[in-house]
Amino acid sequence: MSGNTFGKLFTVTTFGESHGPALGAIVDGCPPGLPLCEEDLQHDLDRRRPGSSRHTTQRQEADRVRILSGVFEGVTTGTAIGLVIENTDQRSKDYSKIKDRFRPAHADYTYHHKYGIRDYRGGGRSSARETAMRVAAGAIAKRYLATCGIRVRGYMSQLGPIAIEFRDWDAVEANPFFCPDPDRVPELEAYMDQLRRDQDSVGARISVVAEGVPPGLGEPVFDRLDAELAHGLMSINAVKGVEIGDGFASVAQRGSEHRDEMTPEGFLSNHAGGVLGGISSGQAIIAHLALKPTSSITTPGRSIDVEGQPVEVVTKGRHDPCVGIRATPIAEAMMALTLMDHLLRHRGQNQDVSVTTPRLP
Amino acid sequence: MSGNTFGKLFTVTTFGESHGPALGAIVDGCPPGLPLCEEDLQHDLDRRRPGSSRHTTQRQEADRVRILSGVFEGVTTGTAIGLVIENTDQRSKDYSKIKDRFRPAHADYTYHHKYGIRDYRGGGRSSARETAMRVAAGAIAKRYLATCGIRVRGYMSQLGPIAIEFRDWDAVEANPFFCPDPDRVPELEAYMDQLRRDQDSVGARISVVAEGVPPGLGEPVFDRLDAELAHGLMSINAVKGVEIGDGFASVAQRGSEHRDEMTPEGFLSNHAGGVLGGISSGQAIIAHLALKPTSSITTPGRSIDVEGQPVEVVTKGRHDPCVGIRATPIAEAMMALTLMDHLLRHRGQNQDVSVTTPRLP
Amino acid sequence: MSGNTFGKLFTVTTFGESHGPALGAIVDGCPPGLPLCEEDLQHDLDRRRPGSSRHTTQRQEADRVRILSGVFEGVTTGTAIGLVIENTDQRSKDYSKIKDRFRPAHADYTYHHKYGIRDYRGGGRSSARETAMRVAAGAIAKRYLATCGIRVRGYMSQLGPIAIEFRDWDAVEANPFFCPDPDRVPELEAYMDQLRRDQDSVGARISVVAEGVPPGLGEPVFDRLDAELAHGLMSINAVKGVEIGDGFASVAQRGSEHRDEMTPEGFLSNHAGGVLGGISSGQAIIAHLALKPTSSITTPGRSIDVEGQPVEVVTKGRHDPCVGIRATPIAEAMMALTLMDHLLRHRGQNQDVSVTTPRLP
Amino acid sequence: MSGNTFGKLFTVTTFGESHGPALGAIVDGCPPGLPLCEEDLQHDLDRRRPGSSRHTTQRQEADRVRILSGVFEGVTTGTAIGLVIENTDQRSKDYSKIKDRFRPAHADYTYHHKYGIRDYRGGGRSSARETAMRVAAGAIAKRYLATCGIRVRGYMSQLGPIAIEFRDWDAVEANPFFCPDPDRVPELEAYMDQLRRDQDSVGARISVVAEGVPPGLGEPVFDRLDAELAHGLMSINAVKGVEIGDGFASVAQRGSEHRDEMTPEGFLSNHAGGVLGGISSGQAIIAHLALKPTSSITTPGRSIDVEGQPVEVVTKGRHDPCVGIRATPIAEAMMALTLMDHLLRHRGQNQDVSVTTPRLP
Repeated sequence: MSGNTFGKLFTVTTFGESHGPALGAIVDGCPPGLPLCEEDLQHDLDRRRPGSSRHTTQRQEADRVRILSGVFEGVTTGTAIGLVIENTDQRSKDYSKIKDRFRPAHADYTYHHKYGIRDYRGGGRSSARETAMRVAAGAIAKRYLATCGIRVRGYMSQLGPIAIEFRDWDAVEANPFFCPDPDRVPELEAYMDQLRRDQDSVGARISVVAEGVPPGLGEPVFDRLDAELAHGLMSINAVKGVEIGDGFASVAQRGSEHRDEMTPEGFLSNHAGGVLGGISSGQAIIAHLALKPTSSITTPGRSIDVEGQPVEVVTKGRHDPCVGIRATPIAEAMMALTLMDHLLRHRGQNQDVSVTTPRLP
Repeated sequence: MSGNTFGKLFTVTTFGESHGPALGAIVDGCPPGLPLCEEDLQHDLDRRRPGSSRHTTQRQEADRVRILSGVFEGVTTGTAIGLVIENTDQRSKDYSKIKDRFRPAHADYTYHHKYGIRDYRGGGRSSARETAMRVAAGAIAKRYLATCGIRVRGYMSQLGPIAIEFRDWDAVEANPFFCPDPDRVPELEAYMDQLRRDQDSVGARISVVAEGVPPGLGEPVFDRLDAELAHGLMSINAVKGVEIGDGFASVAQRGSEHRDEMTPEGFLSNHAGGVLGGISSGQAIIAHLALKPTSSITTPGRSIDVEGQPVEVVTKGRHDPCVGIRATPIAEAMMALTLMDHLLRHRGQNQDVSVTTPRLP
Repeated sequence: MSGNTFGKLFTVTTFGESHGPALGAIVDGCPPGLPLCEEDLQHDLDRRRPGSSRHTTQRQEADRVRILSGVFEGVTTGTAIGLVIENTDQRSKDYSKIKDRFRPAHADYTYHHKYGIRDYRGGGRSSARETAMRVAAGAIAKRYLATCGIRVRGYMSQLGPIAIEFRDWDAVEANPFFCPDPDRVPELEAYMDQLRRDQDSVGARISVVAEGVPPGLGEPVFDRLDAELAHGLMSINAVKGVEIGDGFASVAQRGSEHRDEMTPEGFLSNHAGGVLGGISSGQAIIAHLALKPTSSITTPGRSIDVEGQPVEVVTKGRHDPCVGIRATPIAEAMMALTLMDHLLRHRGQNQDVSVTTPRLP
Repeated sequence: MSGNTFGKLFTVTTFGESHGPALGAIVDGCPPGLPLCEEDLQHDLDRRRPGSSRHTTQRQEADRVRILSGVFEGVTTGTAIGLVIENTDQRSKDYSKIKDRFRPAHADYTYHHKYGIRDYRGGGRSSARETAMRVAAGAIAKRYLATCGIRVRGYMSQLGPIAIEFRDWDAVEANPFFCPDPDRVPELEAYMDQLRRDQDSVGARISVVAEGVPPGLGEPVFDRLDAELAHGLMSINAVKGVEIGDGFASVAQRGSEHRDEMTPEGFLSNHAGGVLGGISSGQAIIAHLALKPTSSITTPGRSIDVEGQPVEVVTKGRHDPCVGIRATPIAEAMMALTLMDHLLRHRGQNQDVSVTTPRLP
């Protein structure tokens, strides 16, 4: 299929430009009988929503999602679920300036050469606004996974140079950074305020964890759970790196250190991040992603226009000085969508399998 | 599709277990008219082949590939290309010991719980032996890409704690480590010899570069070029992390530093690794992957058996103390397969596009 | 993928229930640069629209389609095209009666057993109303194909017992039956009027023709052009049979009669219907489909309720006494979508092919 | 995906040319734990095998299939199953004559224009020899379906002008025509002998029936069970038409006649052929297919060569005067593969569904 669909048995197909009339998605393959209403999707949409703190873009979008099909009398019917969000706060004039020039490190140049034409308003399809539909679709997956005892949560593990140790989940929802350590929040706010004064942007590292995942999810050899997870996470705007478990730290580790030993009481460690041979082990699935600093900054930059002439670009508009701040719900969504698809695929092929071997706690 | 197929328009489907009679693949969607013979695939197969130095497994496999279809009178016909490699050196007795026990950090435990049954000989389908077919299929993609001026090459950028700076491509092929700096080879050999004495294993970092890629490859939004590349690279055995361009270093970078500025003479840097908005920019595509240390070591480890009872596992057999050493050709193959698929997909949708805008050198 | 997507490179994914808030579709893979506006889709939607004559359901639907993405300044951008049609005339009360009973020969029984739940209002997802989005998507394909000199048209070749010879294309658009022979229209009207008095329904045979298709479209071996065409046409509600070219008449033919001989001036006949070995020959692609009589009739029928108890079912509501009458634009759409997908797929794999052999006129 | 794969969760990908070294297939997604050996596949292969009677091609092929992976200790492991059949009786010289000319009604002309190159030996990929792998893969599906109480069988329902009523299944296996009425066999033999004397060929009609299929298989809206069945059956060489249930006879039927009424004792008829709304109803799935007469006859025919010059073609070689005679096992295979894929897909999405409503016997 073309590029706007994710998943194979539980699929999500999205459409929508930053400044078009609306964003939308079709969620196909959702099991029947799941209680679902628009409010269920709104919670995560609000967590991702712009303008919720002074540290994110000031674009005001209500991001109210409508369910257009697939739900009857409050329950999913098993048929395709249509979702739509109308765009309300589009200031296209903001973008007229960059109509004929390529913003450095943006998709302007590549879309232009791929399609020979581009919707320059706010980046059109390449805008992070597209991720709103991922979050809406991911919320459906999350709800279903919850009925199977699977919980997907994420947090910010690094903001620019500031690394953050995980402390507790409650803290994550109590601040606009999804920071798991309440004591570090003031430091993050001070850093962001200075960054704004510097008219610059910065990157971030997000961590996502899925608990309660049964062993067995993931398909050898190309559709490994970690491979599809990497696919989903890397497809998020601005993501430049993905790690499973120890990730790049594994390079300098020795086998005797990295291997997660097992005892009847369970695994003694989780360097693998819950995936062995591309299949879930029953441990927590742990992934980390790196987001680059947004390129939409007001510090002038060198570029060219569509004629190939040199120009200086200053991105005014309304932008996130750190796209990573709003990325946590998006990363959760992609992990939830990946697990959902693999849960259904595993069931389809292996329904009869009943492994009597004791499973590790 | 199920899990053994990679790609959408140029697809590769593989089969084969470590100790089964043979490995095979079907390469579908290869354009007609490409000169191709078995020798063309053999070069990369030999680069990946075990037993080629004392630093890799001593299993002896000729890895002679046969082309069974899709090639007529020395040229591809456009129909499915069938490939097969017979397994010759299978010492199944080596593995009888671990028939009923799960080797730590191996896929034994997860395959057992997914399927309720597993081919325990050498890990069966989860063995890195499977990657031989990726390399064979990748060689076909490489040859076609070469006719389009695209070249894919890789090298080892870190062995355990030893980081290696790139020096030149010729050096890469002149040593068993794919080390790009001839002066560092003795150091690597000494490290590996000590590692063997320690009866341990270690991880590695591989870098892959594609040059000559035109701008425009990659499909928004889920099938971004970097997302599919991450999928392909993460699907390689033992890979725990993937980076595009600066990867995780982007986290601490500022936008003014990370953004690759453009002038009529070209890009001034390549922090992005040749991908913007998920689409190739015309710069070199750069990816890095982290491979974990193999878990097959002779140092005893704690585990359980299929009854859930505690056991001690010592992996004898013949194994790579560093699976990363042979991973370079595999990583090249996955990048070539990804680029090939996207080249055909881009053409299909955008054949009429002729962008007159000057493209950056 | 799940079941609501058609095509591989040019894909259409639809959603929507007969009495839900709206119908929608995402058309992915449309080449950039195609002039497109909502009016372009409306023409075919109006041809399919209910209530346009006394011989079809009296349900009144404006079927106004909105384009929500993928088109910028009147031209397609190459990104996903979102389409939506709001439902306006829903009289759900009509259906309350059959909430707990299965209408004979309807999908009520099968949806109930597949999903354990169903939207009983007008058949929900199983309603022919779903085909409106196929027609809208098909209109996009038709427009693109037209730029390649390909034209897709259909007509009614049989209504119940009345077989109709093709006479001319202009006649087809001049009557509500898509009848190609103006002299037969009064006969069809008289038949339909009597049918209504009999409170019964009847089947129909539709023929679809694509002219200007270049040789080479279709992928061996499973994705043959005729196989995918059969897939698309058989997926239309009420279709029970598909023929390519002579179809079932081929059974009694001899090879000397059926084979289409070739001369430098062209083919001497077209028994094959424009497809040889699953690949287009350059001749007109000809397909025929059989539509069963709708089961929604006011003549009482025996059935059971959800408790398995016997009931008598009389379908009131507003229904088409012959669903075939409105099927012509739908059949055209499915052929256009199939050709569009294969045109892009063929290009992707065979762009470089330039066959110098003279092609038959 | 490219064109050589069938199915989505249970997939079959094939390769191989008529006169290449071998044919092969990869069956992916087969559930683990199914007892399977090569003999299990051989039975159907022998039913399809050429040279088994004087009424089929005299090419001698043992068609011995080897299982190269996915089966361990006599049981499927859930991993990809690799299959291969070596070609043994290839008389390529037979074909040198038609190297530069297009046989009428063959794929020669279309392959030439699609790929610009073709393997002319026996039609290469377009040869019906390719169907051997469908039969081998179908046999795996049949075995699994049997464990679910599903049985797929076919028979010849018409040979040229001779229509055959079904009488009993035992008769089908007792003659080379798969004729269900033993009393008609002499008539068929006489007809075929005369046909050979006439140096001509003829078409046939095959019927396939699946019994024991539970209600619920099939995915709305494009992946309807009947639509995918039509896809699979139409993809068989020489097939020009597909019917489900009453098929084209439905055109002249009235709703009061066609609709299959239900009582607590079951359905009162099966005009629908076991599919309602694209989903299985629990009744027998019934499909019919029309095969055209083979074009490989020794009666001279007009054609052109690759230069576009007029030529006379006489197909010597060894051919089936009626390809329909060997088509029954192939049609069974395609129905089995379609049902298998939909069984797994249905399970994946609907595992939790437990419909308490009494299901019709």
